Amino acid sequence: MPLKFEIKLELKLKEKTQSQIVTPDLLHGFFFNLLPPNLAEEFHKPSRFKPFSLWSRDIFNFNKALSDHNKENSTPSKEITVTISFIKDEYYPAFLAALFERKKKLFLGPYAVKLKMLDGKLIKNDQYQGFDEFLNISPHPYLYFYFKTPVVFKRGEMDYPLPEPRLVFKSLLNKWNYFSPFKVKVDLRKTLEEKICIIFAGIRTHKITLSLGSGITGFTGKAVFYGRNLTDEELLWLNILGEFSNYAGVGRKTTMSFGMTRFEAHNKEKEL
Amino acid sequence: MPLKFEIKLELKLKEKTQSQIVTPDLLHGFFFNLLPPNLAEEFHKPSRFKPFSLWSRDIFNFNKALSDHNKENSTPSKEITVTISFIKDEYYPAFLAALFERKKKLFLGPYAVKLKMLDGKLIKNDQYQGFDEFLNISPHPYLYFYFKTPVVFKRGEMDYPLPEPRLVFKSLLNKWNYFSPFKVKVDLRKTLEEKICIIFAGIRTHKITLSLGSGITGFTGKAVFYGRNLTDEELLWLNILGEFSNYAGVGRKTTMSFGMTRFEAHNKEKEL
Repeated sequence: MPLKFEIKLELKLKEKTQSQIVTPDLLHGFFFNLLPPNLAEEFHKPSRFKPFSLWSRDIFNFNKALSDHNKENSTPSKEITVTISFIKDEYYPAFLAALFERKKKLFLGPYAVKLKMLDGKLIKNDQYQGFDEFLNISPHPYLYFYFKTPVVFKRGEMDYPLPEPRLVFKSLLNKWNYFSPFKVKVDLRKTLEEKICIIFAGIRTHKITLSLGSGITGFTGKAVFYGRNLTDEELLWLNILGEFSNYAGVGRKTTMSFGMTRFEAHNKEKEL
Repeated sequence: MPLKFEIKLELKLKEKTQSQIVTPDLLHGFFFNLLPPNLAEEFHKPSRFKPFSLWSRDIFNFNKALSDHNKENSTPSKEITVTISFIKDEYYPAFLAALFERKKKLFLGPYAVKLKMLDGKLIKNDQYQGFDEFLNISPHPYLYFYFKTPVVFKRGEMDYPLPEPRLVFKSLLNKWNYFSPFKVKVDLRKTLEEKICIIFAGIRTHKITLSLGSGITGFTGKAVFYGRNLTDEELLWLNILGEFSNYAGVGRKTTMSFGMTRFEAHNKEKEL
């Protein structure tokens, strides 16, 4: 059962250092530090798709805030929200137990980290949806994707940062079929090739630097798709995959803050 | 020899009417009204690519200004700039002669039109570049496209409004080979498939209504491409095609205000 939840981190700079940037791969490393050893091992195993995603929109804003702060020569402390999604819920109890028992000091790059409690809770805004429940949603023809952290696809040898509907849905389709006990029953290849129109796209790219200096370019923004002459089954599956994107994210590196997505389906075009 | 120039039109609403919108196809019709009969006939002939383009960024803003005006119940008069490009300069003298002799009353939808003179000139900002001159440009690796009026490609049966580099260059390549005496000598198919990265994209789509009510969705904005591991010849041809876009436009319906493009090539990434 896919589920997701948020935790809040308070970051405090221990001493003035050269680099105060929190890169997506640093956050990824931090997350592995939170895991109990057996889970860390499980998540490290090579596999086509990882059973978790990890996002923080704040690390992108945070870095911006830091560079502003830096000019004023202060040492900032700030909160960031991290969203964790498990595609299979079996990981959840072990992760939670380890999180609550966590005593040792946590670091994220140059920052000391405190897990923030709110009303005695570490876990916020948890949501879950059984794979069987996805099958029972009521489908709508207009498919709205809000891309909240940079999205990037692989196309041949290159990164591809455009909301190409085929790539959006193929990424979701492959992940769904990998993890769900209910495989997609219709052949969506031709549907994706020939039937999906782009009704709206408003996006811009961002070049995100990783800690070793390499960069990945992804896009954020919004895209609205509409399928022409779809069968009921095709429309249902596009809706299911869209819903699934709320947990799975879209595109590459969703375990490293890329590809966080919010999906909505509507009966009509909404005011933009 | 590709050339382009601007004319300025003053539009005056003769009487209050229901529709005050200037749609791209109305502008297209107006242009045919400006042509001498032999040219109108020539341009009407079925052909894969038209030897002219016609753009006005203002009709999109103009319509916005009108709907604002409308609320205030006034009858607006306004200037719009129209850019005309001829891919072959042989049309230019006949067009100019007809333009200067034009005495009869001109209309654009519900508007009476006056050709505006500026310092005794009807033609403004004219530019031209021989097909042979394109071959002598110095190529640069970063390719900046500014899409000034909505751009749209055809993909299968559907309109496709994203700055997909393959579609951008294929549109230019086909038009270049159709009109230029100097055909592209390298096979760019694999280059376009495998070597062009998107360094930056910042775009949004617009749904443009035509006078019979149908709509076309195109994008405006900016895209920066970079070719990896290009041969000198490949880089040269991408630069030539980019330069050519200043005259040819990009994508479909460039004779109807779509696909107006400004191209620049640079040695480094420019500040965004």
